[in-house]
Amino acid sequence: MRQSLARDFNDLLERGRDRQLRLAVTGLSRSGKTAFLTSLVHQLRHAGLEARLDLFPAAREGRILGAQRVAQQDLGVPRFPYDEAMLALDDTPPRWPEPTRGISELRLSIRYRPGKRGMFRSETAHLTLDLFDYPGEWLLDLPLLGHDYLSWSLAQPLATDSPLHNERRALFGDWLEAVKGLDPAAEADEASLATIAEHYARGLREAREAGFANLQPGRFLLPGELSGAPVLQFFPLPGLAEHDRASLAALPEQSVYQTLVRRFSHYQQHVVKPFYREHFRRFDRQIVLVDVLGALNAGPERFEDLSHALSTLMKSFDYGKRSLMSRLFAPRIDRLAIAATKADHVTPEQHGNLVALIEALLADPLQDLRYADVPVRAMSLASIRATQAREVEHQGKRTPALRGTTLAGEEVLVFPGEVPARLPDAEFWARQGFDFPAFRPAPRDNGTLPHIRLDSALEWLLGDKLQ
Amino acid sequence: MRQSLARDFNDLLERGRDRQLRLAVTGLSRSGKTAFLTSLVHQLRHAGLEARLDLFPAAREGRILGAQRVAQQDLGVPRFPYDEAMLALDDTPPRWPEPTRGISELRLSIRYRPGKRGMFRSETAHLTLDLFDYPGEWLLDLPLLGHDYLSWSLAQPLATDSPLHNERRALFGDWLEAVKGLDPAAEADEASLATIAEHYARGLREAREAGFANLQPGRFLLPGELSGAPVLQFFPLPGLAEHDRASLAALPEQSVYQTLVRRFSHYQQHVVKPFYREHFRRFDRQIVLVDVLGALNAGPERFEDLSHALSTLMKSFDYGKRSLMSRLFAPRIDRLAIAATKADHVTPEQHGNLVALIEALLADPLQDLRYADVPVRAMSLASIRATQAREVEHQGKRTPALRGTTLAGEEVLVFPGEVPARLPDAEFWARQGFDFPAFRPAPRDNGTLPHIRLDSALEWLLGDKLQ
Repeated sequence: MRQSLARDFNDLLERGRDRQLRLAVTGLSRSGKTAFLTSLVHQLRHAGLEARLDLFPAAREGRILGAQRVAQQDLGVPRFPYDEAMLALDDTPPRWPEPTRGISELRLSIRYRPGKRGMFRSETAHLTLDLFDYPGEWLLDLPLLGHDYLSWSLAQPLATDSPLHNERRALFGDWLEAVKGLDPAAEADEASLATIAEHYARGLREAREAGFANLQPGRFLLPGELSGAPVLQFFPLPGLAEHDRASLAALPEQSVYQTLVRRFSHYQQHVVKPFYREHFRRFDRQIVLVDVLGALNAGPERFEDLSHALSTLMKSFDYGKRSLMSRLFAPRIDRLAIAATKADHVTPEQHGNLVALIEALLADPLQDLRYADVPVRAMSLASIRATQAREVEHQGKRTPALRGTTLAGEEVLVFPGEVPARLPDAEFWARQGFDFPAFRPAPRDNGTLPHIRLDSALEWLLGDKLQ
Repeated sequence: MRQSLARDFNDLLERGRDRQLRLAVTGLSRSGKTAFLTSLVHQLRHAGLEARLDLFPAAREGRILGAQRVAQQDLGVPRFPYDEAMLALDDTPPRWPEPTRGISELRLSIRYRPGKRGMFRSETAHLTLDLFDYPGEWLLDLPLLGHDYLSWSLAQPLATDSPLHNERRALFGDWLEAVKGLDPAAEADEASLATIAEHYARGLREAREAGFANLQPGRFLLPGELSGAPVLQFFPLPGLAEHDRASLAALPEQSVYQTLVRRFSHYQQHVVKPFYREHFRRFDRQIVLVDVLGALNAGPERFEDLSHALSTLMKSFDYGKRSLMSRLFAPRIDRLAIAATKADHVTPEQHGNLVALIEALLADPLQDLRYADVPVRAMSLASIRATQAREVEHQGKRTPALRGTTLAGEEVLVFPGEVPARLPDAEFWARQGFDFPAFRPAPRDNGTLPHIRLDSALEWLLGDKLQ
């Protein structure tokens, strides 16, 4: 009888422990989302055996008994292509996986033994881990929900004459030319609006190619089934002013201005909101990946641009009571990580600087988040380590260096230089004491994927759920 | 006073005449939807001037005063790319426009003078014409709504051993091999189901390439944003039987069978139904285009397959009280045209046979439609005429021939042969007295696009609205 009671209690405990966690990964394009998620799934699947996860106690203590992929809940969301990614990494020569487009999902069922604090050491429990991956560009659209078309138009840097955005403006030359003669009061001509909108979208695409990150509206870059639909055919109108509001509002329905107003509003309601409503507000935890090194490589205007984009992106995690996000969607993310990726592209003694730099880059949003009591941690990591750190004799002294294979297939030994520990100033840019080359992944030879501090990220994002 | 009353009455009449018509164009892939819609818009835009539309009284009588593209209503539907299509046709050398993918839309505002029966000859009226273009493959999914997963699976020809489908079965070899060992009762393995489903989808794609038309589920061929989502990862299970229903229903949630059941049902609810609910049931009129000549060229198994596909497709227009369509969606299409396209690819004296053949091909569905009082007309046409008809001396007698330029750019004079006026039998296929080459469009040299009987189609689809 006693034994049976104890067993019942045990069962109850075990069921109580069966938990679910929805963890989302995001970042701007080329920040390393696919590599991160692939490596995360890979490490968890091998956590009981070969994986090296010393900074992840549940794994280090041998308490992770297995992680199995199981059927995801939402049948209409593409499955994260884990197998394809592993095939790419195991190819000869190894390749980086194809980047994902849009949102994707993968569900892991993790069987583990709870830690010391568990009452019954022999019990096992399950954690159902739903992983999501989505473009950070989608988060750049949040502020757009706080605007109407006029105020949005006024807030776009391109619609103003600012010498701060010269490189970017150059990419929008065709659009600036085309939109110049457009009279907001004129009757809208469908075909000409479509052409001007296409110039704008091309400007955005070219800006992305050129390394810019602060690109709105986000869905213009990845139109999917909306390609060619009027909802993606709006743009800011230069030359407007807030004091024109009343006269603009009085323009007829068929005017250029009112047509753009309708499209902007449709974009808010039918493109931006559904993502937040159906996906974002259901995430429990989130990691935001940032390719800081890529931006450093690209120079001051693009670094500044990344900084703006990240501030915008981070607004989606601002749960302060009066924030746009809280007012609109009542989100529930209870833990956040910001990670500078590709840490293997600099020498180990620079990793501290990398974390300091990302903290500096996100100083304002991090302060807001901490003020709003959102637990957040900044870190640096390499989801899949592609290089080996070395110390070599260089110009007469022991110097840290990296050995790796470039994307072109050349084996090299490089001295990538210094990461600034604070926001780079003009003097830093003038000196340019760095050059971070891109490497291809190393063959893993049947071992688990090598990484740098992915275990630390796992601990922050999952550790407490595996106690 | 009198005059003012008369004017008011006149205004009222005019407003009463302002009408809206939603006209949809469909057809299986490569049936000529884009060419048809491009030419239709082009002819209406030029109806008052150069267009030759003798079989379209409103145009012949000079009553069409203008047709202007205006803003469409649904901002989330891609606009039909008319300008791009015209650019392709006006290229050097002229090209056929890129086929559209998915649904697209274009709105024309037609200004016209009502015909003789109008009380006030000088009045003008407007017809707002909403044009839609969508893949006929989507209509092949209607019957799927009448099934559950088990009955659908049993109805799939590939899941049975029939010698009638040898060519098609050959294209599904990998799938048949992969699905063979799959136990419906086994626990579902996500990755292996994804692989088997990918074999199935590849079979469908290859079958389409090989000229087959009866391909379900339709969205597997054009997955769009659902690419990689579990909802597109189901397939029929061979070896099931109706008398297994109870035992299959008792299988656990995680079994292969129940997993496929859930996906099938999600596909019904979230892929098939939304198209009918949000688009199809709002169409007023419909033209279905059929590339009969292409199927004749492809041989007996594919011709038979087209016949099956068309019977399936036509079920969406079966408004008999007890039809699946009427029960589910209460549609309102009040006039239907079925057109054999590419009539310019045979000599003029064969056009009668072409109409007779399409009538024969669709005999059963046409009978059902006429019984259900849906006005329907079968016709043959060339949306954009690419050839010139000639009579030449050939083997000692005057023979009808076609002059045109092949897709490869060669100017040729051909004798395409005879179109059968009834369903071809074995003897006909053995004789094979035809060969219909494909032509590129002719340069239009600033004239309107040449066509064959597009005016007749316009009259059937629009004529009564311009009275």
